[in-house]
Amino acid sequence: MRTSLLLLGLAFTAPSVLLASDAELANRPFGLVIHGGAGVIERKSLTPEVEAQYRAALSQAREAGYAILEKGGTSLDAVVAAIQVMEDSPLFNAGKGAVFNADGFCDLDASIMDGRTQAAGAISGVRRIKNPITLARAVMEKSEHVMLAGEGAERFAQKIGFEFVPNEYFQTDFRRKQLEAAKLREAAAAKKKTSSLTTSDHFDRVARYGTVGCVALDRQGNLAAGTSTGGMTNKKFGRVGDAPIIGAGTYANNATCAVSATGWGEFFIRVGVARDIAAQMEYKGSSLADAANATIAKVGQLGGDGGVIAIDREGRVALPFNSVGMYRGFKLSTGAAAIEIFGQSK
Amino acid sequence: MRTSLLLLGLAFTAPSVLLASDAELANRPFGLVIHGGAGVIERKSLTPEVEAQYRAALSQAREAGYAILEKGGTSLDAVVAAIQVMEDSPLFNAGKGAVFNADGFCDLDASIMDGRTQAAGAISGVRRIKNPITLARAVMEKSEHVMLAGEGAERFAQKIGFEFVPNEYFQTDFRRKQLEAAKLREAAAAKKKTSSLTTSDHFDRVARYGTVGCVALDRQGNLAAGTSTGGMTNKKFGRVGDAPIIGAGTYANNATCAVSATGWGEFFIRVGVARDIAAQMEYKGSSLADAANATIAKVGQLGGDGGVIAIDREGRVALPFNSVGMYRGFKLSTGAAAIEIFGQSK
Repeated sequence: MRTSLLLLGLAFTAPSVLLASDAELANRPFGLVIHGGAGVIERKSLTPEVEAQYRAALSQAREAGYAILEKGGTSLDAVVAAIQVMEDSPLFNAGKGAVFNADGFCDLDASIMDGRTQAAGAISGVRRIKNPITLARAVMEKSEHVMLAGEGAERFAQKIGFEFVPNEYFQTDFRRKQLEAAKLREAAAAKKKTSSLTTSDHFDRVARYGTVGCVALDRQGNLAAGTSTGGMTNKKFGRVGDAPIIGAGTYANNATCAVSATGWGEFFIRVGVARDIAAQMEYKGSSLADAANATIAKVGQLGGDGGVIAIDREGRVALPFNSVGMYRGFKLSTGAAAIEIFGQSK
Repeated sequence: MRTSLLLLGLAFTAPSVLLASDAELANRPFGLVIHGGAGVIERKSLTPEVEAQYRAALSQAREAGYAILEKGGTSLDAVVAAIQVMEDSPLFNAGKGAVFNADGFCDLDASIMDGRTQAAGAISGVRRIKNPITLARAVMEKSEHVMLAGEGAERFAQKIGFEFVPNEYFQTDFRRKQLEAAKLREAAAAKKKTSSLTTSDHFDRVARYGTVGCVALDRQGNLAAGTSTGGMTNKKFGRVGDAPIIGAGTYANNATCAVSATGWGEFFIRVGVARDIAAQMEYKGSSLADAANATIAKVGQLGGDGGVIAIDREGRVALPFNSVGMYRGFKLSTGAAAIEIFGQSK
């Protein structure tokens, strides 16, 4: 397993139930971690120009979230701001630039969780919402539900005044070519076999991944996590991955940590990745790093791959993954910061 | 919290990695627990005739599953058999007799998990599959996915040869009247308010619940869990509850336990109820009973209610709930058995 763990023993005053004084707030650690998807990301497959584009976009997303935290804003606001930047960028498989499903549409999933209250919101299979993470947040804050699916989620968005975009807004030539390539591979493979019961035998390992996410700790000591994705190229049958599943792709609880996952969603659901990391901290007293590593190892044992980003209430972060690469970055109030793409974090 | 816990210290030989001998198998505990939903079930609201119908249906479901276990069948087969009986009965909010959504359709969700492999399958929002639990199982066994939603799930069902029924098959006069009553209450309440951002202010506490589920331990020591539901009367916006969410409504792992939940789905998702019980056993060494009680207490602290059924690998069972009642039953190879509806288990 490749790991890029950071154990930053930040000075942290015990959480106060009362409002913290300005002096206390000034000393509290804060920061955020972002990811732009994990998978087969090899140095040779990225030209220097494209790599620079990814680094710039990751940096822009990170700074958008960090600026909010620095000004004393909430971790929820920071998570949404960072994810919106990645949704708006055509580079990532979320929002604009999302992958195409088998029918030639972009189907979007997102979820968010508030570590302070354990409130959560999730949407799956929406096609006309520019920033899915903002709709997930609206489900959390403006409905009595946690998860809304498909057209129903869009009817809710309409009711509360969301702006709609045509599905073409999300569609890019790059992703359309990925879909065409996936369909050609599928057709070629289908010729070799007479029948199959699997839904997609010819899974594109490269195109399987690509989710964006952010976890943040604010100056008030509140954690939040969010995840947004277009799912899997050429996906069929209304497949739902881990991104909109609270406990699998996203989890936050002030008592432990905030986690956003990216990887082979089916394994991440079975393991309940995000919640599993928090559960080890809650019930076993594990450190964030040990818990995150153990959970990614479990995913690997079942045959899956991917990674997570996580931050705990003391501002320690972990970014383990067992895939070839993971687009990722973090910035902490200690000054520690990085943007990475390939195997090992520097 | 009302609890009905059974701690049955059954003689249990340590699990063998090799095939067990007939003599060993004969000594292994096995059994199952079922539920037919939790909620406001008061003695005064059930006539003796209706109560007798529920008891007979619960008993029929339990016996269908137990017969399979007794003959040496798998816990997965037992779970599906027990749930199918409840799906086929108009008494429960699953399959035939499911509640109506706001558009006047029955929308069905189900999930299943295999404790031996942690394989899982789930479907949400299907309208034409007679026994949703069998489609959830097919997703687990015949697709590479864990969760399929809506029309996509039905296209998968068609591809693998499932028989379809019209949505009218599920619809009953009793549930139609519940929908009409819910809409009248909603309209009356809407007159008193000029606007609202909530999706359903006038949530029907009585009609909110009603899910069916089964957890089983077979003679081979394998655990399985399954859950099936029609969701919430008058539900809107493609709302997804906990029943199809692996880790919330359903979880099974031979290392710990199998759990199926029923209750106010939003809280059950936020707590990740089924996985939370297993996590306490896995990471903290809690007993099944302590873990199940602690998790239901967490749901209560957040403001939710409902219950779970659970069985561990030694055949101990727990059936805690904090709602007024829960339709439930169990039968174990020790001879212990019960069918209960109201507050306290005898």
